[in-house]
Amino acid sequence: MALFRKLIQLSSTARQSSSSLSSSLKPKLSMTPSLVLAGSFWGFSTTSRQAGLGPTKSDEKPRVVVLGSGWAGCRFMKGIDTNLYDVVCVSPRNHMVFTPLLASTCVGTLEFRSVAEPIGRIQPAISSEPGSYFFLANCTALDPHNHVVHCQTVTDGADSLDPWDFKISYDKLVIAAGSQPLTFGIKGVTEHAVFLREVYHAQEIRRKLLLNLMLSDVPGVTEEEKRRLLHCVVVGGGPTGVEFSGELSDFIIKDVHQRYAHVKNYIHVTLIEANEILSSFDDRLRKYATKQLVKSGVRLVHGIVKDVQPEKIILNDGTNVPYGLLVWSTGVGPSGFVNNLELPKAPGGRIGVDEWLRVPTVQDVFSIGDCSGFLESTGRPTLPALAQVAERQGKYLASQLNKIGKAGGGHANAAKDNELGEPFVYKHLGSMATIGSFKALVDLRQSKEGKGLSMAGFVSWFIWRSAYLTRVLSWRNRFYVAINWATTFVFGRDISRI
Amino acid sequence: MALFRKLIQLSSTARQSSSSLSSSLKPKLSMTPSLVLAGSFWGFSTTSRQAGLGPTKSDEKPRVVVLGSGWAGCRFMKGIDTNLYDVVCVSPRNHMVFTPLLASTCVGTLEFRSVAEPIGRIQPAISSEPGSYFFLANCTALDPHNHVVHCQTVTDGADSLDPWDFKISYDKLVIAAGSQPLTFGIKGVTEHAVFLREVYHAQEIRRKLLLNLMLSDVPGVTEEEKRRLLHCVVVGGGPTGVEFSGELSDFIIKDVHQRYAHVKNYIHVTLIEANEILSSFDDRLRKYATKQLVKSGVRLVHGIVKDVQPEKIILNDGTNVPYGLLVWSTGVGPSGFVNNLELPKAPGGRIGVDEWLRVPTVQDVFSIGDCSGFLESTGRPTLPALAQVAERQGKYLASQLNKIGKAGGGHANAAKDNELGEPFVYKHLGSMATIGSFKALVDLRQSKEGKGLSMAGFVSWFIWRSAYLTRVLSWRNRFYVAINWATTFVFGRDISRI
Repeated sequence: MALFRKLIQLSSTARQSSSSLSSSLKPKLSMTPSLVLAGSFWGFSTTSRQAGLGPTKSDEKPRVVVLGSGWAGCRFMKGIDTNLYDVVCVSPRNHMVFTPLLASTCVGTLEFRSVAEPIGRIQPAISSEPGSYFFLANCTALDPHNHVVHCQTVTDGADSLDPWDFKISYDKLVIAAGSQPLTFGIKGVTEHAVFLREVYHAQEIRRKLLLNLMLSDVPGVTEEEKRRLLHCVVVGGGPTGVEFSGELSDFIIKDVHQRYAHVKNYIHVTLIEANEILSSFDDRLRKYATKQLVKSGVRLVHGIVKDVQPEKIILNDGTNVPYGLLVWSTGVGPSGFVNNLELPKAPGGRIGVDEWLRVPTVQDVFSIGDCSGFLESTGRPTLPALAQVAERQGKYLASQLNKIGKAGGGHANAAKDNELGEPFVYKHLGSMATIGSFKALVDLRQSKEGKGLSMAGFVSWFIWRSAYLTRVLSWRNRFYVAINWATTFVFGRDISRI
Repeated sequence: MALFRKLIQLSSTARQSSSSLSSSLKPKLSMTPSLVLAGSFWGFSTTSRQAGLGPTKSDEKPRVVVLGSGWAGCRFMKGIDTNLYDVVCVSPRNHMVFTPLLASTCVGTLEFRSVAEPIGRIQPAISSEPGSYFFLANCTALDPHNHVVHCQTVTDGADSLDPWDFKISYDKLVIAAGSQPLTFGIKGVTEHAVFLREVYHAQEIRRKLLLNLMLSDVPGVTEEEKRRLLHCVVVGGGPTGVEFSGELSDFIIKDVHQRYAHVKNYIHVTLIEANEILSSFDDRLRKYATKQLVKSGVRLVHGIVKDVQPEKIILNDGTNVPYGLLVWSTGVGPSGFVNNLELPKAPGGRIGVDEWLRVPTVQDVFSIGDCSGFLESTGRPTLPALAQVAERQGKYLASQLNKIGKAGGGHANAAKDNELGEPFVYKHLGSMATIGSFKALVDLRQSKEGKGLSMAGFVSWFIWRSAYLTRVLSWRNRFYVAINWATTFVFGRDISRI
């Protein structure tokens, strides 16, 4: 029975050429839920097939489609009641990244898998329920009038398969597609710098760092080149940049001195920030962090990057800064996908939502996390692009949709305004950042001007570690994070370059 | 003082163009140990610099150069007395792979780092002693008459650095450069199949397997294509092929059924072998293994591969076998580097050595592991390309060189034949292989025709696990292997595709 239900949901219209963004916004296809698969794969080009999940029937569970697998989307999927809804997640990665601990993986304090949660572990229905799916794909266009999203698979260069298009009918759509790093139009950033938002970024940083450590020890490297190879430059003094600099200096002090003794005097970390580091933190904490970072050997430079070249960056004042590793962490902005959506926008270009996180111009579309912001008409400020905002929104929206589903409004165009209940209110719980050498900052004030506890040092570091350990989503990863911390303490960081 | 010693060992002859393989075999350069670095890096093309480590002086420690970081080279480095010798290792990877457990990492039973030992952990002197080094490089040519090896760095596509050449004078040279997979000249193997010898192979297999599992669930995939994507074909029925098939079927039974419930009926494993599987094992064990593999769903096919195409392989009898993942494991043979060496060869093309593992035509050159074999003149058979042979040879050679070093024969051309002692004798300790479902084979006979204990089943599996757990080199990895096994048992295998 379950298999049968799954099969009839796989509908397709064969041999239809893939639709472009513009044409997809027009009503065009009648998505009949019948099993007409797109002919033999071998017979014709993959781009010519168009299959998908057709609209749900009124006697079936309504379908929530979630675009994205970050904090917002995953917290939403964790909270949604799978007795009320089928859940379909569309994302180019099959896991959530526990971003606050990502910086630790770049130098081996934590392992990559300890900070990645497979979506199937967050919401098991996705891997087992007949109507719930995870699709490794990008959303390419949105057709809100027909309640359809258009997607394209991520085949990741697999040599035997070209990407293909498909579409999914939704009853409710949750856009949690995240943001992308800001480069301010500076030339060369995308080509030569590494961002720090995904596990593969951290992997690239670790491989590059170990490569440079090894190459700088090979005969034939000049003093100048050795200094360049081992110069790690971090641009951006927000929590990510500062935490990464702290981790790097820990790695240098504790591991490089012992395992790369030949080159230990050549490695340096420079943190470049245009304004002041950790600008969202208390003045006192900021001063403390500055002092600690300088003490552990991080060079803090006030400057604006003008140009990024393969071996050096050039600052606004003309200074040349040669580097071997460049990490770019200057905040995030709307992605190309969000920019291209024909939906109302909040100030700053994010998808505009009302107090209930709905996109008001269309039915059954919601947006949460970094990609969304309150519409100007709500009179509310845009919330910062933080994990805790995204997570809170995901949790809120799940309970909203559960409420709607229970009241019978789960299907497309079936929800009524009186089922909405309380609007979303964000209460900032405070900020934390580790700065290396067993030190961290904890700022529990609700806003920059607010009053409240703020502290720094070893106790804060302990709070930082405990807090994040309890926040790690699964018991498996919680266990591994603890084990990784313990082995790093006992055996040092792993330096295999794999 | 230590720094000074290190500095004078960095000698170079500036602006010399990189020498070719043929010319490098002629005596050509006087390697004076003076600090003449190759000018500014920025000034001229990187290929034009030639630096290196010059010959050691008689009042300095002699230098052993080890080519390779596999079982043989690493066991040698672990055993060499660093009070007697400086050790320089040249290898394109900075770690040793614990190969018997590599198959387990492909499906997440073990993590990649649990089977990789950094060389600096195996021989700490390499990372800290002023005259010992690890160089991330390939040896390009050998000049045995001048006691010099020519190398080229592995820069791995780093966008800011071209590879460069350098040379190292040795007092003793240990060639432990390993072997390469045999493809029998079959077209398409290198392009479309994955080998299983390095950590990056296991990573590729895991990524491909998870990608295919996810793509086969996306709308638009035909039944036929789904079956192809989820058809895992293993060519070669030796221990590696069988262990990998066993791990895969475990993964399918325990994890795919739970985490990829939608496609669980489409995934299959086929093991193709031209002769019989596990040919080195006892007949009874072989039958047991065959029965067990078939029971856990592995299809065993007798066949010879003729052609490998991106989506299918073609057997000699004309059968087409479509695949989504193809793992190639049909044994190993001499690498291009070994083929190009102008040294005496053993039957089969390996570097020929005498009973003391010396290359007899040249002074101070030894060869161990898969790349070497006994010369025909010794009247001894070529030993199999096994970890236990390589390890035993590494251990033997380390104690030989320690003996020679103690007797004052450590420097180039200083060893006398009467310091050699006992020749190397290999005693086979038996073979083990796991076949999945908590079952393994243990064959303790010394040869195929010999008598002795052989057994199969759960107890063997327990012996297999315990034996390898104690053989893992470092306490850190021993701990992690145990933890990985425990978490796999409790939480299942990790399916994040990172």
